[in-house]
Amino acid sequence: MAAVYLALLHYPVLDKDGRVINTAVTNLDLHDLARLARTYGLRGYYVAQPLALQRKLVERLLAYWRTEGAGEYNRTRQEAFEALRLVNDLDEAVAGIEAETGSRPTIVGTSARQRPGAVSFPELRDRMAAGGCWLIVFGTGWGIEPGFMAERADELLEPIDPGAGYNHLSVRAAAAIVIDRLLGRP
Amino acid sequence: MAAVYLALLHYPVLDKDGRVINTAVTNLDLHDLARLARTYGLRGYYVAQPLALQRKLVERLLAYWRTEGAGEYNRTRQEAFEALRLVNDLDEAVAGIEAETGSRPTIVGTSARQRPGAVSFPELRDRMAAGGCWLIVFGTGWGIEPGFMAERADELLEPIDPGAGYNHLSVRAAAAIVIDRLLGRP
Repeated sequence: MAAVYLALLHYPVLDKDGRVINTAVTNLDLHDLARLARTYGLRGYYVAQPLALQRKLVERLLAYWRTEGAGEYNRTRQEAFEALRLVNDLDEAVAGIEAETGSRPTIVGTSARQRPGAVSFPELRDRMAAGGCWLIVFGTGWGIEPGFMAERADELLEPIDPGAGYNHLSVRAAAAIVIDRLLGRP
Repeated sequence: MAAVYLALLHYPVLDKDGRVINTAVTNLDLHDLARLARTYGLRGYYVAQPLALQRKLVERLLAYWRTEGAGEYNRTRQEAFEALRLVNDLDEAVAGIEAETGSRPTIVGTSARQRPGAVSFPELRDRMAAGGCWLIVFGTGWGIEPGFMAERADELLEPIDPGAGYNHLSVRAAAAIVIDRLLGRP
């Protein structure tokens, strides 16, 4: 069975005018993707955020969800947060996976735009079904900076694009659909 | 082609202890499901909320997104919000769809739990591909009150359940996966 990880990057990503920025953390990105990771049996969910003050906020949230009281309040949410690991950047996520599994993950970049040579959902699904170690990377803001992704990703995944001429899903919705297409029932 | 609508109920839904409650609006439920509806070419997204103060908050948000300034700030988000209609309850959503399309929608209830006689994703997908008018209903909180759903839904949809023994997706993730399974590419 494949070992699959998620990563959510807050840097380097684009703003709506195409500038490279470091986004702030959106609380529900933490909750929704942690719950998604747990629901689909992923090995971990890396939140990559290099800004110190932002990291403090995430650490405070994680510390709360490790308490006994949080577990009494909502045990399933506590369980979801056990998958979440705060890192500075993609390198640190990859190093964490290598330390855990002994192998370097295949890095899959996602985007709302079509890229040359992008792998299709059915093809990637078949490859993942055969096993291996995978890191599926999502960007906040208006998506991962394309130069960074071209350099760092081993594979670029085709966009979701249902054909209605509008491709502006939230990262929470996009990640859910991507993971379901790759790991959900056929 | 089928006319498909989404509805998000804030009442009657369950809290984590199984009590019937009226939830407050979560801002990102409005954004994420409006963007999802637009991405998949849905006809409309009904937000059902009977509480007056909560309705005022939603109305204020919608009023902002109708302004010229909001369109200059983020045209695609403005476009997504055009699909959102605030109603008091499921009846008002159904009446709105009847007024718009001339037909009563088939009401599809969703749940994280398996229900007797639930329709499978492939079966519902095939039926929707043949046309008709459909309203897919999601609940906030811990899901739609089962008695209400049994009484009001024409069909109950099977749960997503990827088989990892944990079924606690956010409604934002669940709605994205359900709509993609029913209307996305095979």
